[in-house]
Amino acid sequence: MAEDKRLVEEITPMSVDFAQWYTDICLKAELVDYSSVKGCLIIRPYGYAIWEHIQSILDKRFKELGHENVYMPLFIPESLLNKEKEHVEGFAPEVAWVTRGGSEELTEPLCVRPTSETLFCEHYANIIKSWRDLPKLYNQWCSVVRWEKTTRPFLRSREFLWQEGHTMHATAEEAIEETLRMLDVYAEFHEKSLAIPVIKGRKTDSDKFAGAEATYAIEALMHDGKSLQAGTSHYFGDGFARAFGIQYSNKENKLVYPYQTSWGVSTRMIGGIIMTHGDDSGLVLPPAVAPVQVIVIPVAQHKPGVIEKATEIAGKLRDAGLRVKVDTSDNTAGWKFAEYEMKGVPVRLEIGPRDIEANQCVLVTRHNREKVTVSLDALVEAAKERLEVVHDGLYEKALANRKAHTYDCKTIDEINEALAAHGDGFVRAMWCGEEACEDEVKAKSGVGSRCIPLEQEHLSDTCVCCGKPANHLVVWAKAY
Amino acid sequence: MAEDKRLVEEITPMSVDFAQWYTDICLKAELVDYSSVKGCLIIRPYGYAIWEHIQSILDKRFKELGHENVYMPLFIPESLLNKEKEHVEGFAPEVAWVTRGGSEELTEPLCVRPTSETLFCEHYANIIKSWRDLPKLYNQWCSVVRWEKTTRPFLRSREFLWQEGHTMHATAEEAIEETLRMLDVYAEFHEKSLAIPVIKGRKTDSDKFAGAEATYAIEALMHDGKSLQAGTSHYFGDGFARAFGIQYSNKENKLVYPYQTSWGVSTRMIGGIIMTHGDDSGLVLPPAVAPVQVIVIPVAQHKPGVIEKATEIAGKLRDAGLRVKVDTSDNTAGWKFAEYEMKGVPVRLEIGPRDIEANQCVLVTRHNREKVTVSLDALVEAAKERLEVVHDGLYEKALANRKAHTYDCKTIDEINEALAAHGDGFVRAMWCGEEACEDEVKAKSGVGSRCIPLEQEHLSDTCVCCGKPANHLVVWAKAY
Repeated sequence: MAEDKRLVEEITPMSVDFAQWYTDICLKAELVDYSSVKGCLIIRPYGYAIWEHIQSILDKRFKELGHENVYMPLFIPESLLNKEKEHVEGFAPEVAWVTRGGSEELTEPLCVRPTSETLFCEHYANIIKSWRDLPKLYNQWCSVVRWEKTTRPFLRSREFLWQEGHTMHATAEEAIEETLRMLDVYAEFHEKSLAIPVIKGRKTDSDKFAGAEATYAIEALMHDGKSLQAGTSHYFGDGFARAFGIQYSNKENKLVYPYQTSWGVSTRMIGGIIMTHGDDSGLVLPPAVAPVQVIVIPVAQHKPGVIEKATEIAGKLRDAGLRVKVDTSDNTAGWKFAEYEMKGVPVRLEIGPRDIEANQCVLVTRHNREKVTVSLDALVEAAKERLEVVHDGLYEKALANRKAHTYDCKTIDEINEALAAHGDGFVRAMWCGEEACEDEVKAKSGVGSRCIPLEQEHLSDTCVCCGKPANHLVVWAKAY
Repeated sequence: MAEDKRLVEEITPMSVDFAQWYTDICLKAELVDYSSVKGCLIIRPYGYAIWEHIQSILDKRFKELGHENVYMPLFIPESLLNKEKEHVEGFAPEVAWVTRGGSEELTEPLCVRPTSETLFCEHYANIIKSWRDLPKLYNQWCSVVRWEKTTRPFLRSREFLWQEGHTMHATAEEAIEETLRMLDVYAEFHEKSLAIPVIKGRKTDSDKFAGAEATYAIEALMHDGKSLQAGTSHYFGDGFARAFGIQYSNKENKLVYPYQTSWGVSTRMIGGIIMTHGDDSGLVLPPAVAPVQVIVIPVAQHKPGVIEKATEIAGKLRDAGLRVKVDTSDNTAGWKFAEYEMKGVPVRLEIGPRDIEANQCVLVTRHNREKVTVSLDALVEAAKERLEVVHDGLYEKALANRKAHTYDCKTIDEINEALAAHGDGFVRAMWCGEEACEDEVKAKSGVGSRCIPLEQEHLSDTCVCCGKPANHLVVWAKAY
């Protein structure tokens, strides 16, 4: 059993060094590997399979809502990026530039897309002519590049995978509705598929997307009390449309500007899964996106009939639509237990000679190690029920953690006391609306404004910072 | 009906200008649009949906064969690209270079991946240690960039979408088997899903992939008598493994090099679909990858009950797993007929008041405009049968065209006579194996060696060029 121990010991405990614990899981669960390009990671089969399940669920939902996928170029000419003033100011400092093609210097540098608003706008200017052409509901799955200085797997990397929706509408109302609809899609996906509770809110002006009129986000609390912005949805008004000359003839035959949105989620969500559900034994995966939902481990597999039975019941579970793997390698059962705990497989199925004799097996749920013995005759239902138990258990645990680390505060002193007493978390406090107060809260307590939650409460009459009248409840936190 | 006419007339007839006909279809069927980045295209929803169906069929097949998807970085450091000598010589002249990140000049330029052998090898060197780690069967779906001078939609563009499989094996035999297995997968996909007959063959040395020991390809004959290389599969031996220091301990505990393959198909296949099946009315899509398989057009749709009935039967077809659209727009039926012929929808379903009264509808197959009247009670079976008729009809037509334009020749004079008499096509002729003869055939007749078909025949004893003994049957053609 020496090897089992080694495997588990290789993960730094969360309490010792949270950042190292996170990196350990990324590498030991074989989600990623480093490449020789700084800040660009290799997403390994196990990590990429999680992304494929995420894609598959979201893509289906986008299409149900009428969105169509397209593919835009990887490159943006400098002059095109420059067309919308705020946008270029936001992105130019962090883009990678192609200056040479083959053996020739380019006459105009091309940036590697950090986001594709400008490309979509150029195309929309070509194809939107009449009210009949609206709405346009486009989405793209691709990689984008942002030249970050400090990088961490999934959370911040120079290249990452994402989807970016870009839509055009006849009216501001429709566009705002789309912006909020997609925020809801992201929130529901996090809660129903990733078992991650989120707060939906609007960003303050200081934290808006470059060029947006309003940015909405979902924020999730991680194990270490920091907030992860897990998805954003932007309302652009007609700002880009004016900058790019996108006009259409409305029903009254007048030339007018359409209204625009964009929204995106990325491989960052995998970081969110790790930091919401993981523990000191490794990854814990929500069943909806787990590459393997049930790992079947034959016990005493050298005994006659064990491997055969394990393979047979795995086949039954697969036929019922579950993702199942049987590990018949010559590693010890103990090693296998540790390995698949590390990989976060939601349910472990153990079956040995005595179980077979009794027509039963043992199911162990990863998040709480609860063992239940079930009859093989009722196995499919039991396995499905156990997967639900894992999903619900993960969600409840994460919600309880968020509740335990959410502090209602009326002054900056109260913020500092709460953080000192209970650790980092979400601070809920009223705000007057002035950027100066946001800055001061951050300077004095370390937490920044994460969002103005859509579900508002009136905690007090005055701003947590300046004491002037306040109408906005803001959620504050340290952030990734 | 003026508009119908206009729509159809906008396509240049194939016989007038084949290249313009091709471009017209790409644009008018709304497959692509131009962007302001030369050689980089926008793949529009209709074109991208074809790609999604291609991906879905191939990805399933790859996974059935044990392959796993991964994601490698977009960038390759110059020093990494330089590690395998032949490889860098082949690709360096046509890559795009990132030289600036944010506001800083990079100390080492990064090329935008033209293909990812070097990245896979670097990773494999990290993770392949023991014979237990083999085989590694990885695949990646991504975009790649090659700085082409002249570009054409789908056929040759500076950025294109593809998949690249990269596998590592314990023995040369296993790797060669994989190389040929994936060539078979590509050939079967072309014939069964795209209705495109292909010739499987090995490339001559002058036409091998940079760094490969052997390159295999599938070649398809286009309408204009030129050949399209539609997919390639490479056997690398242990060349890259040696260059990248990839070694593993075999069962005898000796350090040895593994053997490697790579294989890929790209959005170029969409160009192949257009040039194999398209006609002067537009695109003709093979049913397996058609975004819309049946277009339902209500006739006299203002009459009561027509739209309702059309919508009802569309629902039935959808429930049977078909991809169906109903066009209830206020365009004329004639305009709609032309529009969906342009878009290549395999089957058109017409239903009007008289049809409804008679409990029937009309099905029209796109490729031959054959009309059949079918009872609504047997509609699902009839529609499925019509889709098979389209697939088989397309394949037979393409095969007949290839047979009519395949010429067995014994001398260069015979080649020139055949091409002059019957137009461009596949020339089958024996070859001695000398590159000088390949060059001379090309110089004197315009056709280059496309491949040495796996199915060999002995057409004559001597080389078509030099008259020396010859053992290789070669297929020659002009090529895209």
